[in-house]
Amino acid sequence: MSNTNLLQEFHAYQRKIASKRYVNFLINWDAATEAPKKSMLYRAQMQGELAADQFAYQMDPKNLDLLENVSNRSDIDELDRLSAKKYLKEINKIRNIPQKEYVQSVQNRSIISRVWEEAKQTNDYPLFAPYLDKFLNDVKMALYYRDVKQQDYFDVLLDDNEEGMDSKKYDLFFDTIKAELVPLMKKCLLQGREIDDSLLYAYGSKAKQEEMVRYLADVCYYDLKAGVIKTSVHPFTSSAGTPDDVRFTVRYHENYFTGSLMAAMHEMGHAIHAQQCDPASAGTNLFGGPSAGIAESQSRFNENYIGRSLAFWQTHYSKLQQVYPELLNNVGVTDFWRVLNRIKPTANRLEADELSYPFHIILRYELERGIFSNQISVKELPELWRQKSLEYLGVMPNNDSEGVLQDVHWGGNVGFGYFPTYALGTAYGAQFRAAMLRELEIDQAIRDNRLDRINSWLKEKIHFHCGSKTPEQILLDATGEAFNVRYYIDYLKEKYDMIYFH
Amino acid sequence: MSNTNLLQEFHAYQRKIASKRYVNFLINWDAATEAPKKSMLYRAQMQGELAADQFAYQMDPKNLDLLENVSNRSDIDELDRLSAKKYLKEINKIRNIPQKEYVQSVQNRSIISRVWEEAKQTNDYPLFAPYLDKFLNDVKMALYYRDVKQQDYFDVLLDDNEEGMDSKKYDLFFDTIKAELVPLMKKCLLQGREIDDSLLYAYGSKAKQEEMVRYLADVCYYDLKAGVIKTSVHPFTSSAGTPDDVRFTVRYHENYFTGSLMAAMHEMGHAIHAQQCDPASAGTNLFGGPSAGIAESQSRFNENYIGRSLAFWQTHYSKLQQVYPELLNNVGVTDFWRVLNRIKPTANRLEADELSYPFHIILRYELERGIFSNQISVKELPELWRQKSLEYLGVMPNNDSEGVLQDVHWGGNVGFGYFPTYALGTAYGAQFRAAMLRELEIDQAIRDNRLDRINSWLKEKIHFHCGSKTPEQILLDATGEAFNVRYYIDYLKEKYDMIYFH
Repeated sequence: MSNTNLLQEFHAYQRKIASKRYVNFLINWDAATEAPKKSMLYRAQMQGELAADQFAYQMDPKNLDLLENVSNRSDIDELDRLSAKKYLKEINKIRNIPQKEYVQSVQNRSIISRVWEEAKQTNDYPLFAPYLDKFLNDVKMALYYRDVKQQDYFDVLLDDNEEGMDSKKYDLFFDTIKAELVPLMKKCLLQGREIDDSLLYAYGSKAKQEEMVRYLADVCYYDLKAGVIKTSVHPFTSSAGTPDDVRFTVRYHENYFTGSLMAAMHEMGHAIHAQQCDPASAGTNLFGGPSAGIAESQSRFNENYIGRSLAFWQTHYSKLQQVYPELLNNVGVTDFWRVLNRIKPTANRLEADELSYPFHIILRYELERGIFSNQISVKELPELWRQKSLEYLGVMPNNDSEGVLQDVHWGGNVGFGYFPTYALGTAYGAQFRAAMLRELEIDQAIRDNRLDRINSWLKEKIHFHCGSKTPEQILLDATGEAFNVRYYIDYLKEKYDMIYFH
Repeated sequence: MSNTNLLQEFHAYQRKIASKRYVNFLINWDAATEAPKKSMLYRAQMQGELAADQFAYQMDPKNLDLLENVSNRSDIDELDRLSAKKYLKEINKIRNIPQKEYVQSVQNRSIISRVWEEAKQTNDYPLFAPYLDKFLNDVKMALYYRDVKQQDYFDVLLDDNEEGMDSKKYDLFFDTIKAELVPLMKKCLLQGREIDDSLLYAYGSKAKQEEMVRYLADVCYYDLKAGVIKTSVHPFTSSAGTPDDVRFTVRYHENYFTGSLMAAMHEMGHAIHAQQCDPASAGTNLFGGPSAGIAESQSRFNENYIGRSLAFWQTHYSKLQQVYPELLNNVGVTDFWRVLNRIKPTANRLEADELSYPFHIILRYELERGIFSNQISVKELPELWRQKSLEYLGVMPNNDSEGVLQDVHWGGNVGFGYFPTYALGTAYGAQFRAAMLRELEIDQAIRDNRLDRINSWLKEKIHFHCGSKTPEQILLDATGEAFNVRYYIDYLKEKYDMIYFH
C-alpha cells in the first residue's frame, strides 16, 4: 500500500477509536456526576455492548495489520508511528482475553464504581468487598492472559502507569522520602512554632466555596468555554479527547472550606495540561500526557507549588477574606498560609499537608503490593489500612469510609499501580519548578496574577508535547537532567523551615 | 434458522442498537445541558463517526435479512415481530442515502442545534439561517432518496410524526379549532370578567422556582432515583432507553415564575410516561410511546388537565404562597387559578394559555407547509412569522429570538412535521380525560394529593404498552372510540366559562 493510502487508513482508525473513547468519556463523566442511581445496570449493559464493538474493532486482523504496518514503516511520520505503537501496546494488554471475559470485566468496572460511591457514602465496606474481589480477579485475569508471571503482577501494573518504574525503584524513592521527611516532620513538630489550625474547620458554605472555585478558575486561566466544573464523590479531571473539552469536578465539605479550593487547584493542573496540548493531537492517542507521573506532576505543581505558596495567598487572600470576612478578617496572610500548610497528619489523603502526603501513598503502595503478592485478602484490607494509617500517619480513620474506602481508585475507574505516581509526580514537579526558576521569577508571576506566564512555560516544555515524548525525555528536555529526588526534598526543607522556624 | 436462534440473534441486534441509541441520548443530553461551547466541532466529528458505524450496522445485509425474517415469521412472538417491523420502517427512511451524505447530515444536525442556541441567545437569525438552509436540504435530500414525490414531502413528514395523519386531516382539525375557539376567545375577552395578570410578571428568583419544581416532582411521583432535572435553553425530556433513566430540563425566567412550573409539569408528563413503560421494553425500539401525538397527549395532560386545574392549585397553592409570600399572600386561590389561565395571546408558545396555544401551532404548521411546497424560503421566515403572529395571535414578537427562533425544533433535534402533534396530543389528552372521568374522580385524586391514582390509570391504558399499539388502538382501547375532537372543545368551553363568567 502506498504511504498516502496507509496514512489515510490510519487516520480513519484514529478517528474511529477517538469516537469510542469519546463515548466512554461521556458515559463515565455522566455516571460520576449526575446519572440517576437506578440507571446503573442498564448503563453497565450498554457499556458491555460498546466494549464488545470496540474489542472487535481493535482485534480485527485488518486493523492489527494496519497498526503493525504504520509502526514499522520508516517513510511514515514519527508521530504517526509512535501513535500506532501506542495503540498496539494497549491492545497487547487485552489481546488474549476471550472477548466474553473482557466484556464482562468492563461491565464489572461500570458497576463497581457506583457501588464504591454507595459504600463510601454509607460507610459500608462489606457492600463493596465482593465487587472489589471481582475487580481484582478481572485485573489478575488480564495479567494472566498477558502472560505475566504472578510474581511480576505488581511491577507490571507499576510500569503500566509509569513506564520504566517498578517496585525496586519505588522502594528506593520511598526510602529516601522516609529517611528525609520523617526527621523533618519531627523537627518541625517538636521544635517549631505551634500552629492553631482551627479556622480550617469552621463552617464555609458550599455556595461560597463555589464562588472561590470559579475565582480560582479565572486566576489559573482554566478556559471555561472549553470546560465544565461539577461535583462528584471524588474529584477528577476528564477530557473528551480534545483541548476543547476538558472537565473537572470538586467536592465540597462545609466544615473544611480549603479542601475544595486545593482540590480545584489540583484538578486544574490536570485540566490546563490537557487544554494546552497540541490541538493537532486531538482525537489521537497522543492527546494528553505521556504518563500518570507526568500528569500528577502537573496537578501537584498547580496545587502545591502555586496554590500552597505564600506568593499565591499574598495575591488572593483579600478575595478569600471578602468571601469569609468573619472568619478571616482578623487573620494575617502569612498566618493563613502557615495554617494552610501546617503539618497535620490526617486519615484523609486529600486533606494531607505536603509533608505527610507521601506517607498516604506509601501506605497504599504497600497494601497494593501485598494484594498482588497474595499476602493480603480483600477481607483483611480495612484492618490493615487502619494499622498502616496508625504506623505512617499516627492517625486511625474514624471508619472505613474515611479509611479503606476513601479513594475512588480501587472503585474501578483508576485501578491499581496508580497511587505511587502521585508521589513521584510531586517530585517531578519540584524538579520542573527548579528548572522554571532558572528562567522565570515564579513568585513574581504569581504576585502579578500572571499565571499565564507559568502556564506558558509548562506548555512549551511539557503540555504541548502531549504523549509524544517519554517521561524521561520530558524531564531531560525541560530540566536538563534525569529525575532527581533532591529538588523535592530541598523544596520541602526550605518551605517547612520558613513555616515553622521563621 | 430455528426460531430460538433467530430470536437470540434478534435480541442481540436490539441490544446493539440500544447501545447506539444510548450513546446518542447521552451526547445530545450533554450537548444541550452542559457541554462547553468550544466542543461543538469535535462532538460533531465524533457523532459523524458513530453515525457511520450505526449506518453500516443497520445496512449490513445480514442484519437486514434478520429483521425481514423476524418480521415475517408467524412462529415468533408478536412484540418481536412488531419491533423488527419498526426497525425496518426507520431503516427504510435512510436506506438509499449514500453513507457519506447521511453522515454529513448527522454532523450538520449536531452543529445546528448549538448554533440555534447561540442565535436565540443573541437574537441573531442571520447566524442561524445558513444552518437552517443546510438542515432543510438534508431533510429534503432524505425524502428524495426515499422516493417521496416533492408534493408529498410535508404529508410524509406529518405521517412520520403521527402515523395516519396528513395535511388534509390536520386542515380539518385546525378548521374545527378555528371555528370553535375564535368565537370562544372573543366572547371571553369581550364579555367576560377582566383579569389582571400582572402578578405573573413579578420577580421570582431562580432558586425559588427550583424549589417549586422539586416540590412538583414529588407531587407528580416523578422518580428522581430514575431521573435528573437540569436546565437548558429549551425544555425537553429524554430517556436512555429504559424506565430507569428518564431526564428532563426546564428553564427559568425570573420575570415569569409560573413558566418553569408549567414547563416542568409538561416535561414530567413525558417523563412519567417513560418511567411507566413496561420495563421489558427497555433497550428495544418499543420502549417509549407509539407516536409524537400520544407523547404530547401525556405532556399536555399533566401540564393542562392537572397543572392548570383549579383542584391542583386548591391543593398546592399554600406551598406556592409559602415560597412567594409577599407576592401571593393577598391573592386567593381561585383568583390565582384565573390569572394562571387568563387568555393572553403572546408571541411565545411556551407561555401560551390553553385557548391561544393551538394558534401557535397553526402558525408553525402553515409555515412548514409553505417551506416544503417551496413557497417560503429560509430568508423570508422571520417576516412571515411576524405576519402570522399578528394574524393569529394579535401580537408581534419583539425580535427574532422571541419569534422565528423561539423553538428548538428547527434547530435540528426535533425537525419538521412535529408541531401539529402538540395540538393533536392536547386533543387526545382531553379525550383520555373524559374517559378517565368515567372511572376516576380526577379532581378528588388531585385534591387528595394522590396523582399516583391518575398515573396508574394512564399506565394501565397507555404508558405500559409503550410502542406496542398504534395511536388509534390506544385511543380506542382507552376511551372506547376513535379520535373525537369534541372532548377537547367541550373541555375548553366549560373551563373558560368557569374562568370568565363564574
